Amino acid sequence: MSSRVPRHGQHVVVTEIDRADPESVLALGQVGTATIHEAIGRRGFLGPELRPIQTGVRVAGTAVTVLSHPGDNLMIHAAVEFCGPGDILVVTTTAPSTHGMFGDLLASSLTARQVRGLVIDAGVRDSADLREMGFPAWARHISCQGTVKSTPGSVNVPIAIEGVSIAPGDVVCADDDGVVVVSRDEAGWALERSRARLDTEEGTRARLAAGELGLDFYGLRDKLRDLGVTYIDRLED
Amino acid sequence: MSSRVPRHGQHVVVTEIDRADPESVLALGQVGTATIHEAIGRRGFLGPELRPIQTGVRVAGTAVTVLSHPGDNLMIHAAVEFCGPGDILVVTTTAPSTHGMFGDLLASSLTARQVRGLVIDAGVRDSADLREMGFPAWARHISCQGTVKSTPGSVNVPIAIEGVSIAPGDVVCADDDGVVVVSRDEAGWALERSRARLDTEEGTRARLAAGELGLDFYGLRDKLRDLGVTYIDRLED
Amino acid sequence: MSSRVPRHGQHVVVTEIDRADPESVLALGQVGTATIHEAIGRRGFLGPELRPIQTGVRVAGTAVTVLSHPGDNLMIHAAVEFCGPGDILVVTTTAPSTHGMFGDLLASSLTARQVRGLVIDAGVRDSADLREMGFPAWARHISCQGTVKSTPGSVNVPIAIEGVSIAPGDVVCADDDGVVVVSRDEAGWALERSRARLDTEEGTRARLAAGELGLDFYGLRDKLRDLGVTYIDRLED
Amino acid sequence: MSSRVPRHGQHVVVTEIDRADPESVLALGQVGTATIHEAIGRRGFLGPELRPIQTGVRVAGTAVTVLSHPGDNLMIHAAVEFCGPGDILVVTTTAPSTHGMFGDLLASSLTARQVRGLVIDAGVRDSADLREMGFPAWARHISCQGTVKSTPGSVNVPIAIEGVSIAPGDVVCADDDGVVVVSRDEAGWALERSRARLDTEEGTRARLAAGELGLDFYGLRDKLRDLGVTYIDRLED
Amino acid sequence: MSSRVPRHGQHVVVTEIDRADPESVLALGQVGTATIHEAIGRRGFLGPELRPIQTGVRVAGTAVTVLSHPGDNLMIHAAVEFCGPGDILVVTTTAPSTHGMFGDLLASSLTARQVRGLVIDAGVRDSADLREMGFPAWARHISCQGTVKSTPGSVNVPIAIEGVSIAPGDVVCADDDGVVVVSRDEAGWALERSRARLDTEEGTRARLAAGELGLDFYGLRDKLRDLGVTYIDRLED
Amino acid sequence: MSSRVPRHGQHVVVTEIDRADPESVLALGQVGTATIHEAIGRRGFLGPELRPIQTGVRVAGTAVTVLSHPGDNLMIHAAVEFCGPGDILVVTTTAPSTHGMFGDLLASSLTARQVRGLVIDAGVRDSADLREMGFPAWARHISCQGTVKSTPGSVNVPIAIEGVSIAPGDVVCADDDGVVVVSRDEAGWALERSRARLDTEEGTRARLAAGELGLDFYGLRDKLRDLGVTYIDRLED
Repeated sequence: MSSRVPRHGQHVVVTEIDRADPESVLALGQVGTATIHEAIGRRGFLGPELRPIQTGVRVAGTAVTVLSHPGDNLMIHAAVEFCGPGDILVVTTTAPSTHGMFGDLLASSLTARQVRGLVIDAGVRDSADLREMGFPAWARHISCQGTVKSTPGSVNVPIAIEGVSIAPGDVVCADDDGVVVVSRDEAGWALERSRARLDTEEGTRARLAAGELGLDFYGLRDKLRDLGVTYIDRLED
Repeated sequence: MSSRVPRHGQHVVVTEIDRADPESVLALGQVGTATIHEAIGRRGFLGPELRPIQTGVRVAGTAVTVLSHPGDNLMIHAAVEFCGPGDILVVTTTAPSTHGMFGDLLASSLTARQVRGLVIDAGVRDSADLREMGFPAWARHISCQGTVKSTPGSVNVPIAIEGVSIAPGDVVCADDDGVVVVSRDEAGWALERSRARLDTEEGTRARLAAGELGLDFYGLRDKLRDLGVTYIDRLED
Repeated sequence: MSSRVPRHGQHVVVTEIDRADPESVLALGQVGTATIHEAIGRRGFLGPELRPIQTGVRVAGTAVTVLSHPGDNLMIHAAVEFCGPGDILVVTTTAPSTHGMFGDLLASSLTARQVRGLVIDAGVRDSADLREMGFPAWARHISCQGTVKSTPGSVNVPIAIEGVSIAPGDVVCADDDGVVVVSRDEAGWALERSRARLDTEEGTRARLAAGELGLDFYGLRDKLRDLGVTYIDRLED
Repeated sequence: MSSRVPRHGQHVVVTEIDRADPESVLALGQVGTATIHEAIGRRGFLGPELRPIQTGVRVAGTAVTVLSHPGDNLMIHAAVEFCGPGDILVVTTTAPSTHGMFGDLLASSLTARQVRGLVIDAGVRDSADLREMGFPAWARHISCQGTVKSTPGSVNVPIAIEGVSIAPGDVVCADDDGVVVVSRDEAGWALERSRARLDTEEGTRARLAAGELGLDFYGLRDKLRDLGVTYIDRLED
Repeated sequence: MSSRVPRHGQHVVVTEIDRADPESVLALGQVGTATIHEAIGRRGFLGPELRPIQTGVRVAGTAVTVLSHPGDNLMIHAAVEFCGPGDILVVTTTAPSTHGMFGDLLASSLTARQVRGLVIDAGVRDSADLREMGFPAWARHISCQGTVKSTPGSVNVPIAIEGVSIAPGDVVCADDDGVVVVSRDEAGWALERSRARLDTEEGTRARLAAGELGLDFYGLRDKLRDLGVTYIDRLED
Repeated sequence: MSSRVPRHGQHVVVTEIDRADPESVLALGQVGTATIHEAIGRRGFLGPELRPIQTGVRVAGTAVTVLSHPGDNLMIHAAVEFCGPGDILVVTTTAPSTHGMFGDLLASSLTARQVRGLVIDAGVRDSADLREMGFPAWARHISCQGTVKSTPGSVNVPIAIEGVSIAPGDVVCADDDGVVVVSRDEAGWALERSRARLDTEEGTRARLAAGELGLDFYGLRDKLRDLGVTYIDRLED
């Protein structure tokens, strides 16, 4: 709906996109999504229902976006051509879909192009194969149900998932806690803020692990009092 | 996340926005969302879970947008000041919320400012009062649960609901079938296309009502054959 | 999956079906679904998520069935030709769909053919128009989102919704409590049992309204005792 | 689980309960749930999924509680005997159930005993009849699916719905915005606080309707500034 | 509801069933569900909510079916007697149930009878034990909540799960992508088609892994053009 | 809402609580939740949606309870101070929340205090870290989305999750099958009953593994006959 979307509802494949700075992206791939999300002002989270199909993978890449009809993966095939090293394919549908719209064949294509993973607001199939291939995916569903290839859509247009707008070239950060999107031109800033946060957290963690209370550490006791929280010994029975 | 969103995650209230052409908006308010959605290329629908709390109301207005913390309506109060005649207030939250974040008091404020209605990706309360006041609302939940007023957010920034980006000033069309958003600068085009569609539909309806089959009318028989659909007399038992 | 389904996954339109006895169907249309469901052994309910889009309508008809791809209403158009007076169109999809797959144009066609209503395990649109036309519908969603017409499916094959198999010609009974399907060759028996039940219920209702306890009426006191339910004056605090 | 629950998991029917003061209950029945919920400190709401099956009814009554096995209404029958004028029957199940566990026959019994309504964390059936009888109900589901009468449970023990504990005799307040429970011994206090709130709201409503901003009225401008919310003229494109 | 279901709603245990050809079943157990589902015309999938409680298991077996009351596993016990080597027990309920209706004791029984696994449209318990025993299960829920044994049901009657009808003796194929049911008399055909598909896929995979585009491989470029998808260099900002 | 909750809706931190007998708690930590749930009369289960974020952990501890505003973890910080060896922190919110309200920093604090784990009716973040630290958690969501610290709540008041009341000091038992709460003063009794059950189950398991049917073992054949379940050879086609 944004004014940057092609007018008059045409279906387009945009062939050239600007990508976030690759070094910042690589570095953000080392930082957890929880830290990034907090560092950039608690924005960009695609919601708790987009779950990894594997555990223990942390990665960041640049978004190549796909907007598909539910249960139809024609446009995913069209998008592959514009995926390159360091990208993450981000797929959404025009209405909710549980179909396994992406499987091991598409993963083979993307692996050949050094794509780092998949984020899909629908389903994946061949999940055991994807895990075996080491191709990471975050999806709303796992489903063996395949798709047709008959309805048009778009590639590399701005899309939105769970209230977060995603432009082609934005940074997609993903791990066991979910997926966070960082705007393309905020990548460097996000990295800087995340690193600052990591430094702080390390010190905090040490002090908390040593027994200091967060209540004292963060100075929350006054806040509790101001908010009218009362400490009492016991509840009467 | 779009590059048009303020950098660095600040919370902002944008005081001046460009609105879609009021006459087109008014005219779109006469057209059903199903027609508009189809006319503009099947885009802009906020999903079947945003339901009207009343029946039989059809309206369109220009979006004043709010991005709130769940269960906190501070920013809705901040937004009222920038709502005017012909607007529709569109509220979303940074994470899912079932709270009744909007009730009869806020509706009184908006009515005083000739606002046409509310679309909220959270809950409303005082639903009986809203119906009685004739203030239409589309919401994900109805809930008597009130909110706090303690967390910052933004007003008149681009937001997204269920995969649809909404910019301030966009046209919000709503009726019993849900809510469709038309981009600000596509309002005139959308109206034109919708009217063309209405004209066609009127003729179609007459012919279908007279017993002509859609299959013939739309010329779908060949398509069925090409797709391999076979007509048979009976299934063997 | 049943052996009665056409082999090898072809898409078929079955043109001739056997329908339940029309008089039994008409009579079942006077009985509430709660009574029928109970009378036939608590079977055949399509689940609480298939809701009427209107209130106060009670109807029964013979099923013409459609199996569609999600978000594609091509096969609904194909089905219209085989609908006749006293039928109810029953539509399901091969995967969950929220699309408004049926609207006022299709309703015009079905009205012309004296079809009694629609049951759809997906969405309807033009809901205000359907109510105005007096064309009753039970649906999982209400959504202005239209469909394409590009994927094959089947008409008048056995389908299943929420764990209930539905064969073409079966009796579809629907009211404010939902939809119950009665097997074609059980229509007469179902009617007889329902009537017997209605007679009994009338007497029961009078006695309960007069203050007699169901516990006594149904002789449940002994059962409670046998099940180890103890009556006590008060819970200790 | 509370220590007030009978020990060792027995199934009990408690025959005598203390009820909240009837006059307070009656008066609370005039106040909306949104007001009561706010007045008592934003507690006691049974969640947005317990919806009225009718519109425009506002009522309060004293809770008679039932804990049932899913799909089994034996204990509802047992509870009727202990319901009296001014009560509301509150039913929950030991696991989620969509069954229509309560219908017009039970409503006849309760009407005979001057019970004011039903709150059930499961389904109701005969919904059209209940509306016609004027017997109000709040339920999670509407379903024609009946139940068996074969499994033990309890009556008038403390139960919990959606995180809210409900003791027999507590005040159950319900309207179009949902259901709020007020502790038995807080009824008078809740009424007092609600009335104070109503008085305040009336004045507020008048001022807001006259165009005064909530932002000024509630003195929120400073808060916004302290929280770092910035006012800007326009977003750069 | 199918005419093959026993008349008049009786509860029956069918003691003799015809099973799909064991060699085809065994061979189908080597093929992934995604391949089978595609091979047989995209049918038979029990939906993405029936999830394996383990990872990396792929199996096929012949269905012994159970239709139970929610939260009651009496009929599962009745079914064990009719389970034999190579079977998979398939359980559904007459209304949604989250109960853990199957645990390690029943798994011990089935293991003794060389049953290959469980598919249940409800919950399982003792999930850690089942994994340790190597007894695979696909379930909608994992829940420690046990059941009663008091309500009748049926064994080896046709059932339906998520829109798929399942007859006793049908082939149940399950892996990490979910569960697909193949009609008893289509087992050989399904195997043949699956094998053909596997052969094709192997070649495709090699070519895609070598960098060939699916777009070219499947000849989709013309289709995109015919559907009106436009390639453009860049979106205007 | 229980009368034991502080009057008038104040926010309180209760500093001293009575805990269940530590030896019983430790011993219950060896027993599976499915056994405990059954042993105590099928009560206390927090529902199938509270899932472990790890596999293979079984633990019991004494509840320290937190009632928080959604998306706000201020009160979790306040609760840490009152957690000690053998406790399990149990957190719920006043409305549904998907936020990751608890992460590795809070886990560091609790580990320092020898707390055994977390049960939260909301989300956790840093899930990979929690698994690595060996700090077990049961949660409704996994989400990188952090929280604010601005809204008051309570510590060590009775709370309720999914229909189960939980008092501070109650025994929280958790494993791969979910979470079961045992009332503080029933700990010893629950242990005794669970052990008796385990003994019985061991014998049962051996006999079932040897091929004896549960139907015979539990004497269910007569029950089936009494319930009207008929054994038939075959269904007519």
